[in-house]
Amino acid sequence: GVNPDLANERQTASFSVEKLTAWLDGGAEQTRLRRAVVEAIERDPVFSRENQYFQSQNERYEAAVRKAVHLQKKMHEMGWSQEGPESKYIYRAVAGDIAFLLHRIFMRSISVLGSDEQIAKWIPPASQYQLIGSYAQTELGHGTYLQGLETTAVFDVTTQEFILNTPKISAMKWWPGDMGRSATHTVVFAQLYVHGKCHGIHPFIVQIRSLQDHSLCPGIIAGDIGPKMNFEHIDNGYLMLQNVRVPRENMLNKFCEVQPDGTYVRRGSQKINYFTMTSVRISLISSEAVTPLMKACTIAIRYSAVRRQSKLKPGEQEAKILDYQTQQEKLLPQLAAAYAFHFIDDYLQELFDRGYREIQRKNFDTLPELHALSSGFKATVTQYCTSGVEICLRACGGHGYSLLSGLPSLYTKIIASCIYEGENTILLLQTARFLVKSFMAASTGQSVPPSVTYLAAVKPSKCPAKNKSDFLSPDIYTEAYQHMAVRLISSTAAKLQDLIQSGVKKHDAWNRCTVQLAQAAKAHCHYIIVKNFAEIVAKLESKAGIQKIMKHLCDLFALHGIFSNAGVFLHDGYISGAQMDMVTASYLDLLAIVRKDAVPLVDAFDFTDKSLNSALGCYDGQVYQRLYEWARKSPTNKQISPAYEKYLKPLLHNTLSKL
Amino acid sequence: GVNPDLANERQTASFSVEKLTAWLDGGAEQTRLRRAVVEAIERDPVFSRENQYFQSQNERYEAAVRKAVHLQKKMHEMGWSQEGPESKYIYRAVAGDIAFLLHRIFMRSISVLGSDEQIAKWIPPASQYQLIGSYAQTELGHGTYLQGLETTAVFDVTTQEFILNTPKISAMKWWPGDMGRSATHTVVFAQLYVHGKCHGIHPFIVQIRSLQDHSLCPGIIAGDIGPKMNFEHIDNGYLMLQNVRVPRENMLNKFCEVQPDGTYVRRGSQKINYFTMTSVRISLISSEAVTPLMKACTIAIRYSAVRRQSKLKPGEQEAKILDYQTQQEKLLPQLAAAYAFHFIDDYLQELFDRGYREIQRKNFDTLPELHALSSGFKATVTQYCTSGVEICLRACGGHGYSLLSGLPSLYTKIIASCIYEGENTILLLQTARFLVKSFMAASTGQSVPPSVTYLAAVKPSKCPAKNKSDFLSPDIYTEAYQHMAVRLISSTAAKLQDLIQSGVKKHDAWNRCTVQLAQAAKAHCHYIIVKNFAEIVAKLESKAGIQKIMKHLCDLFALHGIFSNAGVFLHDGYISGAQMDMVTASYLDLLAIVRKDAVPLVDAFDFTDKSLNSALGCYDGQVYQRLYEWARKSPTNKQISPAYEKYLKPLLHNTLSKL
Repeated sequence: GVNPDLANERQTASFSVEKLTAWLDGGAEQTRLRRAVVEAIERDPVFSRENQYFQSQNERYEAAVRKAVHLQKKMHEMGWSQEGPESKYIYRAVAGDIAFLLHRIFMRSISVLGSDEQIAKWIPPASQYQLIGSYAQTELGHGTYLQGLETTAVFDVTTQEFILNTPKISAMKWWPGDMGRSATHTVVFAQLYVHGKCHGIHPFIVQIRSLQDHSLCPGIIAGDIGPKMNFEHIDNGYLMLQNVRVPRENMLNKFCEVQPDGTYVRRGSQKINYFTMTSVRISLISSEAVTPLMKACTIAIRYSAVRRQSKLKPGEQEAKILDYQTQQEKLLPQLAAAYAFHFIDDYLQELFDRGYREIQRKNFDTLPELHALSSGFKATVTQYCTSGVEICLRACGGHGYSLLSGLPSLYTKIIASCIYEGENTILLLQTARFLVKSFMAASTGQSVPPSVTYLAAVKPSKCPAKNKSDFLSPDIYTEAYQHMAVRLISSTAAKLQDLIQSGVKKHDAWNRCTVQLAQAAKAHCHYIIVKNFAEIVAKLESKAGIQKIMKHLCDLFALHGIFSNAGVFLHDGYISGAQMDMVTASYLDLLAIVRKDAVPLVDAFDFTDKSLNSALGCYDGQVYQRLYEWARKSPTNKQISPAYEKYLKPLLHNTLSKL
Repeated sequence: GVNPDLANERQTASFSVEKLTAWLDGGAEQTRLRRAVVEAIERDPVFSRENQYFQSQNERYEAAVRKAVHLQKKMHEMGWSQEGPESKYIYRAVAGDIAFLLHRIFMRSISVLGSDEQIAKWIPPASQYQLIGSYAQTELGHGTYLQGLETTAVFDVTTQEFILNTPKISAMKWWPGDMGRSATHTVVFAQLYVHGKCHGIHPFIVQIRSLQDHSLCPGIIAGDIGPKMNFEHIDNGYLMLQNVRVPRENMLNKFCEVQPDGTYVRRGSQKINYFTMTSVRISLISSEAVTPLMKACTIAIRYSAVRRQSKLKPGEQEAKILDYQTQQEKLLPQLAAAYAFHFIDDYLQELFDRGYREIQRKNFDTLPELHALSSGFKATVTQYCTSGVEICLRACGGHGYSLLSGLPSLYTKIIASCIYEGENTILLLQTARFLVKSFMAASTGQSVPPSVTYLAAVKPSKCPAKNKSDFLSPDIYTEAYQHMAVRLISSTAAKLQDLIQSGVKKHDAWNRCTVQLAQAAKAHCHYIIVKNFAEIVAKLESKAGIQKIMKHLCDLFALHGIFSNAGVFLHDGYISGAQMDMVTASYLDLLAIVRKDAVPLVDAFDFTDKSLNSALGCYDGQVYQRLYEWARKSPTNKQISPAYEKYLKPLLHNTLSKL
């Protein structure tokens, strides 16, 4: 049965959980479809994650391959297709532990960068898994800065082949997923040389393992890069190339070609490459950042409604830890953020879809804005979600530290999202470059993309709030965020100009402003997220039951941001010290209000017990029983430790001297 | 050879690394002794951590037991004793991966809580490892709140025994180290019942495993609690007691006794119990928080001087990432903090030693201050160091995420220090209680302990700084911290009083202030750390070469704190917006200055390559070669994966349908 402490929380919900879930899914029909996919996957024992926390790296890899192979069968069986409506729920249902994700990137890069002939040659066998692909870009010594890659591809006119080499150890390909042990082919990015001239980075299809027996091809040295903080299920690999020859046709040549005589031809726009990165960054926000934060909130909030510790009132029962203000202050802002990010993800998807429609009409005008926003939001949201998951983990005390809580693996996985697909600081600086440029343009009356028109608007110099309830007005706090973003962007742009005018070289001036530029980029994203949340709430008029609680969450998200970044709002006096006290008072009031609906609000995320895979977070709240049951299954309890006979027994029997 | 990029950094050091090391150690003789211990340990292959990152939980446990047993032999061999000058370096040298740490707590608790007879009976065999002890306090359902523990010990007059029971699942002992698989005995904390009356929590010595064959004793159910985020080498355990009988003499009875007829006698002061907790909290600051932060800084800073990525100046070689302002802003404040915390640890040790001398003279007056400071600093320092290690990890990009960097294991271990020995938020609130009390006393002219006399002093209302260089004056920034701490403590105390005067019940009013109380406690600790650092620097006059760089670090630590907590300094206008810009300018200038000595400053921590156990952090900076060598040793490269024959081959050979 359900723990009464949790059951009580659900009885007092101020809204219908089922209606909120349907709204979050985009309609009841989507909810039904999602649940059907999740149920089909979870009912199948091959997809079980029951023993995941006990598995070695080798075992997790094997399980991920087994699941990936079985998924093909399952999809066929269920009549699901890669393009069907179910596909977006499959990854959520298998909860990430699956191989061949890079195989998809392999296929995508051929589809985007390859000619029609290349697509016709490679995509059908890849779709059928007659080969397994990977994507070899990053090197041991080079990540973000693609121009610095050191792998070489020299065109040999006599044989009509490219000769690929790893000229030194730092040029070894390093990190590509699916490459360490699985892939038979990979797309290698290398500096192209023709007749001694370097033409920069180009992609080449290279076979690395035999299709017959999986042995490494001649000239190939490859393997697994070893243990990581998480992602044990992925065989991130290394790859050295020693005079590996591939035919001329293996260079992906939609945009550039080396002709038989060695003539190098470049055609079309390369800008579309950014669009691929943009699409990956946007797509990972939901699955790799927001979903884990939602799961962590679910686990930590359910546990906090069940865990009792110390007494709030003398003479009473020990209190639920969720009733402590400090616990609320840890968890509820994370819950509000999870909602805020769910909505900003919708916003970005829409922006992306609009941009994509334009691109299909050969209009590339939206690319800079899309690139800047996807970079900034990827950085802001992954950073926030990572720290949110950590807060949830620590808020569960000792039990949060047990792998069985599910929280450590959420954390060790999500932290990677701050690094991959562009390290966050570098991404923020790309956003900052766009913002500074837009600000300059706006200041001189030029037109700027819609998301940054606010940079040109004149602002009131003081926040008009007179009491704490004024800070529950979205206009008041949205304006405060806007003012703050404009101030940080404009003051940093001014500093940059001043430095350059005082004779500092441009690149040096830029470097000396980067700490503040990164802060300005974050401020911009924070503003857009608050504004978007407020707009979503405003549009909810017709669903009054949900609107009220969403309004509380929006207020909480916004005021938490002001409370925890007070300096940037106080700096120029836009918000006064007295007003900041009002913000604090309203913020703390909101914690007590949102606390009442905290459990229903995480229930609405609708994660199954299996997908949470947490002894603390199950729907029934039977945490102690489950911790004990799961611990007993640990391999540490399944064998008599050899340590006893070898070390403990001689020690206890005082035969130490004979050791 | 040493990577030239790293060698260059060392040639330009502004001070003697060896002198700084000796000063940090407390003299050249200490450095010599420390190095001798480290060398003796590291030369011995039994203590090798070479394969640690590849080991399973079972393997790490076995290795930790092997090392613990071997250490006894080693100490004997080397002529080291538990009380000798070498002992404080042994733990650093074995780098934490060792068993039987709880055995020491077992012995300490008997020494402190046991009668002379009990000490005489148990300590000699424990010292000789004729038994292995543990310490069973925490339960599945209860941590910090000891009064809530549910294990019972009922006195049976007829047999002169205590009958111990686990009345329900949440009463199971959970988490004690060395208990899951090693211990033969443990100190169990249980509610004492005599003639039906509960006398509260008392400690009992209970044998849990046979000394002959290590099988569980009758009525004992015990095992390992399974996988954790780290600490795989420790067998944290669970323990259920089913009518387990122990003789009357097994209750530790220095302070309380049950006489044969059941008369309960309490004697002496129980306050000394706090002193044990205080001593543990203070002792863990250095070994469990500051040392890992120093290691993380060493790894990340050396790597950042070797890693080159993108170009700062067009046409030049790619830049060392340490030359980017954003990278400096990540790492150098952590480096300054590591130094700041090293010094506050000295301060706390001294305070503790003074308190201990008083206690030996039966003067317990310093206990409240000691308890408050040890709690607050434990929380503040572990929190700061944890986030510092995380920053270092992320600052190393993808390679920081590899276990081979050493950073993930530092992080997953240090994060536990925020939870164990008192969860940090609870500890901060204990400090806050002391601060509010002291503030009230100081306001009404009563005397208060030395560390909080500042609460009574009158403060200037505005910061007198006029330009950015004024903020390099320790008086200026120390005063700013003091002002801020007083403001936060006094305003929260006032809010608390207001609530109570308006009719809110005391416990409720306290709960509604806890977010701000925790903030006030942190502010107090931050102030003391800055003040202490500034005083250390001032006293360094005679060692000019070191003083200059220490002054820079002190300034950096202080200004980073103001820059990143701007709100609390701006709130009442003590620091104006214009002054905050000066703080920012001075802070950013300092980054460029400290950057020049960054590598020598981490070299001075004097960690051996073996103790760092990091492919990125070695002294010679050969990071890529080492990453590759270490990766090849991974078990993922040592076997042909069964995944090929079982899943990949049928897939590739298109026999999917037959699966």
